[in-house]
Amino acid sequence: MSISLEQAQEIIAVAQAHGRTAGWNPLSVVVLDAGGHPIAFARPDGASPGRFEIARAKAYGAVMLGMAGRAQMARAEAQPYFIGAVNGAFGGQVLPVPGGVLVRDGAGRVIGAVGVTGDTSDNDAEAALAGIAAAGMTGEA
Amino acid sequence: MSISLEQAQEIIAVAQAHGRTAGWNPLSVVVLDAGGHPIAFARPDGASPGRFEIARAKAYGAVMLGMAGRAQMARAEAQPYFIGAVNGAFGGQVLPVPGGVLVRDGAGRVIGAVGVTGDTSDNDAEAALAGIAAAGMTGEA
Amino acid sequence: MSISLEQAQEIIAVAQAHGRTAGWNPLSVVVLDAGGHPIAFARPDGASPGRFEIARAKAYGAVMLGMAGRAQMARAEAQPYFIGAVNGAFGGQVLPVPGGVLVRDGAGRVIGAVGVTGDTSDNDAEAALAGIAAAGMTGEA
Amino acid sequence: MSISLEQAQEIIAVAQAHGRTAGWNPLSVVVLDAGGHPIAFARPDGASPGRFEIARAKAYGAVMLGMAGRAQMARAEAQPYFIGAVNGAFGGQVLPVPGGVLVRDGAGRVIGAVGVTGDTSDNDAEAALAGIAAAGMTGEA
Repeated sequence: MSISLEQAQEIIAVAQAHGRTAGWNPLSVVVLDAGGHPIAFARPDGASPGRFEIARAKAYGAVMLGMAGRAQMARAEAQPYFIGAVNGAFGGQVLPVPGGVLVRDGAGRVIGAVGVTGDTSDNDAEAALAGIAAAGMTGEA
Repeated sequence: MSISLEQAQEIIAVAQAHGRTAGWNPLSVVVLDAGGHPIAFARPDGASPGRFEIARAKAYGAVMLGMAGRAQMARAEAQPYFIGAVNGAFGGQVLPVPGGVLVRDGAGRVIGAVGVTGDTSDNDAEAALAGIAAAGMTGEA
Repeated sequence: MSISLEQAQEIIAVAQAHGRTAGWNPLSVVVLDAGGHPIAFARPDGASPGRFEIARAKAYGAVMLGMAGRAQMARAEAQPYFIGAVNGAFGGQVLPVPGGVLVRDGAGRVIGAVGVTGDTSDNDAEAALAGIAAAGMTGEA
Repeated sequence: MSISLEQAQEIIAVAQAHGRTAGWNPLSVVVLDAGGHPIAFARPDGASPGRFEIARAKAYGAVMLGMAGRAQMARAEAQPYFIGAVNGAFGGQVLPVPGGVLVRDGAGRVIGAVGVTGDTSDNDAEAALAGIAAAGMTGEA
């Protein structure tokens, strides 16, 4: 099973609407497949220009390490050199904070990840989870 | 004037529908702003995983050089080392073929670019132009 | 609205004069547009050769993250691995200290950033603010 | 002897005025010192955002190789792999076409280079020579 473009676009739309309803800063959202490659992305009007890189780096680390943003952050707090070295191995494309959320299918397999950026890292993660749930999948933040 | 997320999503939807109607391979489409930064992207089911990088490199070169894909290709044919060296200066992010299409506002100013990949370069460019026209802007392929 | 070359050159001239009047070390100043691309730069006689890279990295991070140097520094103090990872995502071009100053238009929109380097980070930021104010815009340090 | 900031700014102003008088596209101009490091840069309103990288790569190759743009282009035409390999050694920052102009002092020593981009390569070089001559130095295109 994989994330379709239609599902990715629903994840993005629901995550962004979740933030708007809550009154948060505009959220940029990327959905990556099980290989860490972009399926869909959207950056709202008024968001800063670098949001694609940030969103992707949150989601990319989650897919490539099989570890959601919160777990990556715990590891970064405990062993900063570990995440530094991981970034060497992955070309600097891993951002270890909440907002990088794993997407699992019904059998628990990782089928991709969602990266959200724009508000606090915790709010970013909450918006990602809302989008993933609306698309009928399970998120792990 | 700049391209809104809503306009970018319309460009993508129309470009992809243009290809489906014509019976082409699935088209991946990115819309960049006037600084070369992604606003929106969509990769259809069945497209190969590297399509984001290809779409972005087509559009990125167009924005950064102020030169659409067809003009870049003519320069690359005449002076291969020129485009090779340009790619060094821009971190390898310039793909000089049709499908990188400049977007101009009513006054003729470049406000972004669209990158399409998936079918022939000429068809990619045609789909981009269809999307840009539907959003009420002027494309230069 | 965007920063014209004339405005950028005024920002640079006033920022450098501010430092000279105060008796500071010579200040190098870059002005970037809303996409993080250089409009103008000047490095005074006697400044060290690497000043362009430092000035640009201060301003570039501000534009790309939509966060001025002081806020970046606070984040770097709290989460060093976050700024380390951000730098991976942006090719090592983010220098998170004061002296990277956002430029806003009358409506509060970010239209670019100024990067100043040469004296203390706080003095660098003060000079940037002086230049931005002289050009009739609002700076956020 | 070295190029002062005042001289660099005169080179830029005269080169840009030369192009305006001739009715050319807006010219972006960088002046590098004898170590290949930027002293000053200016990009006119309406020029595409990537002009700094192009201008610098023209001038950088000239300084680092001690070879002006025209000679670099002849070498690139004769031995494309040579310039490709040079770019590997210099991080992709060498653009071997006219518009990268060496600056020499009265004794013939290279004290920097000027990079101009925006119109044809030949016109870019002519504008650089005009600026360098106005500042009382000798250019080699």
